[in-house]
Amino acid sequence: MEINVGISNRHVHLTEEVFKKLFGDVEIDQAKELTQPGQYASNFKVTIKTEKGVIENVRVLGPYRNYNQVEISKTDAFKLGLNPPVRNSGELENSESVILIGTNGEVYVPNCCIIPARHIHITPEDVIKYGLEGKKTVMVRINTEKGGIMDNVYIKAAPNSYFELHVDTDDGNAFLLKQGDKVEILNEN
Amino acid sequence: MEINVGISNRHVHLTEEVFKKLFGDVEIDQAKELTQPGQYASNFKVTIKTEKGVIENVRVLGPYRNYNQVEISKTDAFKLGLNPPVRNSGELENSESVILIGTNGEVYVPNCCIIPARHIHITPEDVIKYGLEGKKTVMVRINTEKGGIMDNVYIKAAPNSYFELHVDTDDGNAFLLKQGDKVEILNEN
Repeated sequence: MEINVGISNRHVHLTEEVFKKLFGDVEIDQAKELTQPGQYASNFKVTIKTEKGVIENVRVLGPYRNYNQVEISKTDAFKLGLNPPVRNSGELENSESVILIGTNGEVYVPNCCIIPARHIHITPEDVIKYGLEGKKTVMVRINTEKGGIMDNVYIKAAPNSYFELHVDTDDGNAFLLKQGDKVEILNEN
Repeated sequence: MEINVGISNRHVHLTEEVFKKLFGDVEIDQAKELTQPGQYASNFKVTIKTEKGVIENVRVLGPYRNYNQVEISKTDAFKLGLNPPVRNSGELENSESVILIGTNGEVYVPNCCIIPARHIHITPEDVIKYGLEGKKTVMVRINTEKGGIMDNVYIKAAPNSYFELHVDTDDGNAFLLKQGDKVEILNEN
C-alpha cells in the first residue's frame, strides 16, 4: 500500500519550564501547522551546543511536551560529536545530552538527544484496514535512482493521526526522497 | 556474500590543466593511499562555489584524470543549490557546473558535478568467482538499526581492484554504516 513521505529536519520538543528558561516570560506560538493534528512549528529557534560543535537555528515544535527531546540526524551527530541512539519519541533513557541556547538563556538538558526511528503515523482503524495488526515494524520500499528498502519502520498508531511515513533528512537525502513522495509499505512476514 | 564498506566523502578529480590553474606550478602529491590501487588523497583542497553556496576544504584525489569530476552528496547539493544526477565516474553529460577555487586561482568547470552511484569495485576474476557475470547492478543488504536494502549498486569490474562497496556519506549516515563495516551482496534475479 502507498504512503506519503514526510521528511523531518532536526528539531526540538520542550517542556514549558525549559522553554521559559530559554526564551523568558513568553508563550510558544504557532508559525505553521504540521501534518499531524495539533502539532506545529513555532517561531522559536534554539542553538544546540556540545563540547565538539554547534548547530544554530533549530526549530522548536509545539505544543509543550512533558519531556525535552532533541531530534537530529547522524550527519548532525557527527558535527556535534555525539552518538545518539535511534529511538521512538519519549524513549530517552541513556540518550545524549546537549546544551540548548535561546534568546533568554541556556540550559543543559541531560538525556534528550536521539536519532528518531523511522515511523508511520496511522490511526488504529487504518491498522486494521491495512492488515497491520500486531506488527511493531514494517519495511518500506522506495523506487528512486538510489532506492531500496528501509527496515525497522515503526507503526505508531494513535487516534486522529495523519497517515504518513516520517524519516530523517539522512534517509530523505540518501534515498533521494522529497516531501510528499509516495512509497510502498511492504506487508510481509 | 560479504563485502567491506567504504564511505566516500565529497571529493574532486582534476585534469593536470585545471589542477595547475588552481594551484600554480606545482605537482599533485600523495598524502594517503586509498584502498583502490594507484588512487590517493592529495594534500590539496579546493572550495566548491555556486550562486547559492560554498563548501570549503574539499579533498583533491590523485592521480590526474582526463576529466574534471566533483562528487558530492544530496546533502551537499542542497547547500550548493544544485540538482546533480546520480552517475558512474566519467559519465558527466548534462551534469552540474561549479566554480572551483584553489590557492592560485579559480576555474568555472562545466558539467563536472555528480552524486556518485553506489558501486562495487571488483576484479573480473571475482565477478566470475561470485557468479555475478552479466550483472550490471546488484542489491546490498545492510543489517543495522537503520538497515535495509540498497538498490542499483553498480558492478565496476577492473583488474587490480580492491573488493569494496563504495557509498556516499548520505548512504553511510542514513544506514548507520562505518568505514570497513561488512554488508551482504544479494545475488538474486
